[in-house]
Amino acid sequence: MNTLRLKKQIEEFLIEDVGYQDLTTDAIFNDQSGEIEFLAKSNGYFCGEDVIRVGYSTINSNIEINLQVKDGDSIQKGQTIAYVKGPINELLTGERVILNLIQRMSGITTKTQHAVQLLNNPRTKISDTRKTTPGLRMLEKYAVTKGGGFNHRFGLDHAVMIKDNHISFCGSISNAVQKVKDQVGHMVKIVVEAENEQQVHEAVKAKADCILLDNMRPNEIAEMLKLIPSSILTEASGGITLQDLPKYSNLTLDVISLGCLTHQIESLDISAEVKINS
Amino acid sequence: MNTLRLKKQIEEFLIEDVGYQDLTTDAIFNDQSGEIEFLAKSNGYFCGEDVIRVGYSTINSNIEINLQVKDGDSIQKGQTIAYVKGPINELLTGERVILNLIQRMSGITTKTQHAVQLLNNPRTKISDTRKTTPGLRMLEKYAVTKGGGFNHRFGLDHAVMIKDNHISFCGSISNAVQKVKDQVGHMVKIVVEAENEQQVHEAVKAKADCILLDNMRPNEIAEMLKLIPSSILTEASGGITLQDLPKYSNLTLDVISLGCLTHQIESLDISAEVKINS
Amino acid sequence: MNTLRLKKQIEEFLIEDVGYQDLTTDAIFNDQSGEIEFLAKSNGYFCGEDVIRVGYSTINSNIEINLQVKDGDSIQKGQTIAYVKGPINELLTGERVILNLIQRMSGITTKTQHAVQLLNNPRTKISDTRKTTPGLRMLEKYAVTKGGGFNHRFGLDHAVMIKDNHISFCGSISNAVQKVKDQVGHMVKIVVEAENEQQVHEAVKAKADCILLDNMRPNEIAEMLKLIPSSILTEASGGITLQDLPKYSNLTLDVISLGCLTHQIESLDISAEVKINS
Amino acid sequence: MNTLRLKKQIEEFLIEDVGYQDLTTDAIFNDQSGEIEFLAKSNGYFCGEDVIRVGYSTINSNIEINLQVKDGDSIQKGQTIAYVKGPINELLTGERVILNLIQRMSGITTKTQHAVQLLNNPRTKISDTRKTTPGLRMLEKYAVTKGGGFNHRFGLDHAVMIKDNHISFCGSISNAVQKVKDQVGHMVKIVVEAENEQQVHEAVKAKADCILLDNMRPNEIAEMLKLIPSSILTEASGGITLQDLPKYSNLTLDVISLGCLTHQIESLDISAEVKINS
Amino acid sequence: MNTLRLKKQIEEFLIEDVGYQDLTTDAIFNDQSGEIEFLAKSNGYFCGEDVIRVGYSTINSNIEINLQVKDGDSIQKGQTIAYVKGPINELLTGERVILNLIQRMSGITTKTQHAVQLLNNPRTKISDTRKTTPGLRMLEKYAVTKGGGFNHRFGLDHAVMIKDNHISFCGSISNAVQKVKDQVGHMVKIVVEAENEQQVHEAVKAKADCILLDNMRPNEIAEMLKLIPSSILTEASGGITLQDLPKYSNLTLDVISLGCLTHQIESLDISAEVKINS
Amino acid sequence: MNTLRLKKQIEEFLIEDVGYQDLTTDAIFNDQSGEIEFLAKSNGYFCGEDVIRVGYSTINSNIEINLQVKDGDSIQKGQTIAYVKGPINELLTGERVILNLIQRMSGITTKTQHAVQLLNNPRTKISDTRKTTPGLRMLEKYAVTKGGGFNHRFGLDHAVMIKDNHISFCGSISNAVQKVKDQVGHMVKIVVEAENEQQVHEAVKAKADCILLDNMRPNEIAEMLKLIPSSILTEASGGITLQDLPKYSNLTLDVISLGCLTHQIESLDISAEVKINS
Repeated sequence: MNTLRLKKQIEEFLIEDVGYQDLTTDAIFNDQSGEIEFLAKSNGYFCGEDVIRVGYSTINSNIEINLQVKDGDSIQKGQTIAYVKGPINELLTGERVILNLIQRMSGITTKTQHAVQLLNNPRTKISDTRKTTPGLRMLEKYAVTKGGGFNHRFGLDHAVMIKDNHISFCGSISNAVQKVKDQVGHMVKIVVEAENEQQVHEAVKAKADCILLDNMRPNEIAEMLKLIPSSILTEASGGITLQDLPKYSNLTLDVISLGCLTHQIESLDISAEVKINS
Repeated sequence: MNTLRLKKQIEEFLIEDVGYQDLTTDAIFNDQSGEIEFLAKSNGYFCGEDVIRVGYSTINSNIEINLQVKDGDSIQKGQTIAYVKGPINELLTGERVILNLIQRMSGITTKTQHAVQLLNNPRTKISDTRKTTPGLRMLEKYAVTKGGGFNHRFGLDHAVMIKDNHISFCGSISNAVQKVKDQVGHMVKIVVEAENEQQVHEAVKAKADCILLDNMRPNEIAEMLKLIPSSILTEASGGITLQDLPKYSNLTLDVISLGCLTHQIESLDISAEVKINS
Repeated sequence: MNTLRLKKQIEEFLIEDVGYQDLTTDAIFNDQSGEIEFLAKSNGYFCGEDVIRVGYSTINSNIEINLQVKDGDSIQKGQTIAYVKGPINELLTGERVILNLIQRMSGITTKTQHAVQLLNNPRTKISDTRKTTPGLRMLEKYAVTKGGGFNHRFGLDHAVMIKDNHISFCGSISNAVQKVKDQVGHMVKIVVEAENEQQVHEAVKAKADCILLDNMRPNEIAEMLKLIPSSILTEASGGITLQDLPKYSNLTLDVISLGCLTHQIESLDISAEVKINS
Repeated sequence: MNTLRLKKQIEEFLIEDVGYQDLTTDAIFNDQSGEIEFLAKSNGYFCGEDVIRVGYSTINSNIEINLQVKDGDSIQKGQTIAYVKGPINELLTGERVILNLIQRMSGITTKTQHAVQLLNNPRTKISDTRKTTPGLRMLEKYAVTKGGGFNHRFGLDHAVMIKDNHISFCGSISNAVQKVKDQVGHMVKIVVEAENEQQVHEAVKAKADCILLDNMRPNEIAEMLKLIPSSILTEASGGITLQDLPKYSNLTLDVISLGCLTHQIESLDISAEVKINS
Repeated sequence: MNTLRLKKQIEEFLIEDVGYQDLTTDAIFNDQSGEIEFLAKSNGYFCGEDVIRVGYSTINSNIEINLQVKDGDSIQKGQTIAYVKGPINELLTGERVILNLIQRMSGITTKTQHAVQLLNNPRTKISDTRKTTPGLRMLEKYAVTKGGGFNHRFGLDHAVMIKDNHISFCGSISNAVQKVKDQVGHMVKIVVEAENEQQVHEAVKAKADCILLDNMRPNEIAEMLKLIPSSILTEASGGITLQDLPKYSNLTLDVISLGCLTHQIESLDISAEVKINS
Repeated sequence: MNTLRLKKQIEEFLIEDVGYQDLTTDAIFNDQSGEIEFLAKSNGYFCGEDVIRVGYSTINSNIEINLQVKDGDSIQKGQTIAYVKGPINELLTGERVILNLIQRMSGITTKTQHAVQLLNNPRTKISDTRKTTPGLRMLEKYAVTKGGGFNHRFGLDHAVMIKDNHISFCGSISNAVQKVKDQVGHMVKIVVEAENEQQVHEAVKAKADCILLDNMRPNEIAEMLKLIPSSILTEASGGITLQDLPKYSNLTLDVISLGCLTHQIESLDISAEVKINS
């Protein structure tokens, strides 16, 4: 997590939500201090320590923040996540943005945990994709890791993915891989998407770093895996749902990447209880 | 929709996704031109005209954009949403960000349409809340309106919402409403959250602009509505799901606000088919 | 006041004024500490606590700030507004920007106070308009409230104002109001500008939230007010000067909005006395 | 004028005014085109060509802009300043921000012209100061030049001004000037503020580039000017009002700097007439 | 190259150089048009097409740009690089920033070409490092590729480099590599810096993706290469100068990374000849 | 040095280098604290106090920074520049950006010192130019001053430079100077570039503030200096290298400006030794 980047984002989010002023808080309160308790309202896995910390310290560096759980911790309905103390108007100003973020992040961490448990095979990593919410990629990919998942490439500059368009344009997988190898640095991995046995053969021959088995059913995947040497990573991808995962448990895949981890957001229910010091 | 703000956001989102460069595209293609066809992969309601238009014209003002549907239109699986023509590397550079946005927006529009249909009562407006994705409030609230819904306050500076904390701090609803009226301008509406009959009575007496019936079941709401004169708006809120809506169909509420419209994001499935001109 | 937004603005303003470096201060001083005393040079009403606080703490969080007056306080020529202690070069770096802001804001607060006193009718609120200095709307509208005035809509997304163009385009006030009501959320108020008796009648029938009596003399306004039920807010606007206000004192208007509060800026004279610790 | 900087500023100002959307325009209009005519409502001198041009082309590069006057031109009540044609919702979106800017700028140009005419001595330049509106220095200083005035230093990095604090800290004007000369580049001019005859003598001896006669009456200034060789620029400053200027007409000053040009903003009255194409 | 990012950077650079206005150009020219010819003043390899294109089109989208060479082309003293036609004041406004950038980039491309020629071994890639100029990493790394070099990791999020600190903290290379593998995604490569034979053995056993032979002389490297299987990439790094490269020509290294490519900037001499249309 | 501007720049630079996260540090370390020692690896002159201070305090305001040298101090190979203590992951996050900056700045300071020593004539100032690295002008010009050099104009708005294009367009130097004097403020100096004796005569007659002797050899310069009165500054410029400087030692020039100070960057070698507290 790059907390400088987070700080800049949270400033933007707070300005989006508050606008010119918090009309209600400014009219009701003066200089009262108080406390916000963040509370789980359903069971799941928490993610968002830095959001609470950076969020409130951006508003006022003297706000006191006591986190009761860590990123990735299992939380139960009714469990306290954090106590935050300070001027009541500043506590309320940050409440909604922070809740919106930690509920989404905890939702992603929880879904990833479920994916890992459903797959139940430590040999195969559960990975995210680039189907993240624009503007929130860093936070969403972080939340995946705290649920036991792993990050696929962060952006278009992190790795090469050769898809059907590229293959047909270059004439063959070998041509495409070679063209790429001639240009990219030695730190860049090359993934080839293969849709059938022939493409798998070609990708093996072309020495891709990773072969992505695209939209294949588990039994097809099992056949393909026999064709791929252990020096090449294997990844299954394409419309796999959480419910499907148990069918992939016995495969010797290196990675299963799931767009649904960040593409469908099921926010975990977290609430904020406010106490005002009289 | 403020398209200047949208343009600035899309620039940020594209920089987030692309980073330093699109390694794959830059290695494979040169100056080829091509076409992207955006296609519905499931049934629903589309939202995102401006995202496609502003997105691609931000990348290159000469890209040709032909939209086949309008915001709010019903779309069927397999239906073309838009054709976009131009340099292939620029088409590919924008693809993921634009898909991520229009899938989320179309998901919100679709869910809102379902809510409106499930409620099936034109007297009662379906409204969003402030539980939007940080950074995307403008787009998400816009998507709600294209599904037949309406926008609640945009931010903390648009309207006053008096909640239990404020009431207990001020001693009574009347005190709280009066304190606010003494300070806010005449364009600002004041909503009072009422949790029981007594609070409804007080809110009526205090001449709130709107009374939000918080976390009440439909039959309770029916009782409360009898107590509120027609000059005061009535709103039901608090954990109402889409499945619950039919039970609210016979009530004479002005507004039902649904956090779930933007709090749980079910992206509509949209894909991009790429053709490269040889 | 959204102090995060203020902080970002003051950073920009300081960079505008300082550029690459304060040539004079950097050449003359080293590590000396000192004090700046902000002093009223004429009578008026002060506004700018947050500017001094956020401004200097943005430069250096260890600068010591002692405010002697509060926003909205009456100040007399020669009266101390604040003492600020810290490194002399940092005190001087912020001096001009902070003076420029608090002089403008205090000028607005003072002018608003005069307006309130000249009108001398607590039933009628003095309100600002959107004729604020680009970039300074938040600060200028805040200054109006500290002079006893109230804020009209913050921006084009806060409320609807139906003017002659809209009316003639829609065919009638009723059409225009209905068209708007069909689209905007329940938190948005609708103001109709009426220029004559017929338009007032129409606006009443259309159930506008507020009728703005545009460019009418006080006796005309008195006639119009008889036609408007108490459930609709009444506002007079259009070229009203401070000198005119006593003529409006006996009217039962809800609001008089004055463009001149922010359109003509009479900065209050405030100076900064510097002491350097030897 | 740096138009890239202007473009960035106008984008910010439009986002400030529009917020999420122009509720009224979006509800009333669709795809209508129209025209805005900017019209002088009182006599004065116009300034703001680039604001109209950059402002509307930032919103939509296809908007057609026809300026009828140039910066610095005298304009009469009722005279057309510009015709702007395009989509009606985009014309209306920019209207208020552009009016707010060109009214302020034309007010400054007009006031500067009056100053030049009142002084009526081409030997002496009328100059602005750093008492500009934070965020608008470039536009305000530009407006001064279009009224026949000249710009003092743009910021703290453009020139050195040695004031009483610096003098007393360094022990003497000579010490202060020498200390500065040892450190600043050869492109930087050094102004010394002198409050009495002795300081003028010292500043002459120290070979300042310019001596600022601070808060002196015209007859005092006349005496001081006899002491200063023609190789040193002479400037009068400190609380000089427009009304005072005729008393300075016979002096052989190089510069009179007037804080009031930008410190008190008397916006020139300009209106916008809108026509909608049916 | 991400041209959206480039556009934002060039805007900043132009604002840095121009400030409030180009005093000279604004005083001398009016609406004249003209031409700038960019000319090589010494022999080398050009880089900067996008800088010229994006730079001038950011200033004015109607400026006509005719590039005579491509990125990576060899250029001779006196050779024309580009002709740019348009309003003379806009041509001059962009001149310095564009020259500063293309001279630096061409300097890097030229130095990289020299490195490639001096090494004279196509098996071994010349690579850059993270020792780039802050703010210019994208442009500098791009320039390296146009000289026949390759890019090492773009930033700290692109690849893992395990150095002596990490090794001693983890107790061994194996521990360090394992700890990393447990946490990073499958797209991330792991480089281990080895300073001696034992560390090379350990890194081989730990299955690093790449072993960086740190600060070793060519004969040492030759010995180490015998210990490393072909499945692991080999990189030499640490204070290697261009003059040293011929000594590395016979080694079977995959990569030699050179900090000096971007750490020492020898700008290529390019000038701009201006013609003004009378 | 404007440290607010520096802070904003360093934030951007850190985001550029770190991206989403420091993969290595995040995988290896937890909450360990440690120390970084910045060490000179070759002899030279240091510059970068504010970079270390602002850089690390931007990352975490609790990091402890102990500088052992001051800007402009001579440093020897092996000498400690600073000790920085704090959380190890934050120390490492800032390391590369801070090194990249202080190595470049110290390189410039060192080169400037050499220039001053080679010229060995205190009467003549060594000055920089606008050939600075885009984005780093403030830091690079600051580094020049710490090596005993002086700053030429910061940007196009600081001073006027009349070159051959301007002269030929205006018809003569006198015309050009007069045209400028009619428009620019009294704080702006006017430099005229003269390429031959006739132009020097004209520039003297036109009363330029400074005459820049462009691309002349020392003996030519000596001749020209005889023609210029002491009231006009004299500057030599144009392709002068450090090696040439001794030939200019006996001239009575005011300024020699050297593009090479910032155009060719020879970073001074500085390293960072890291200690981790077990």
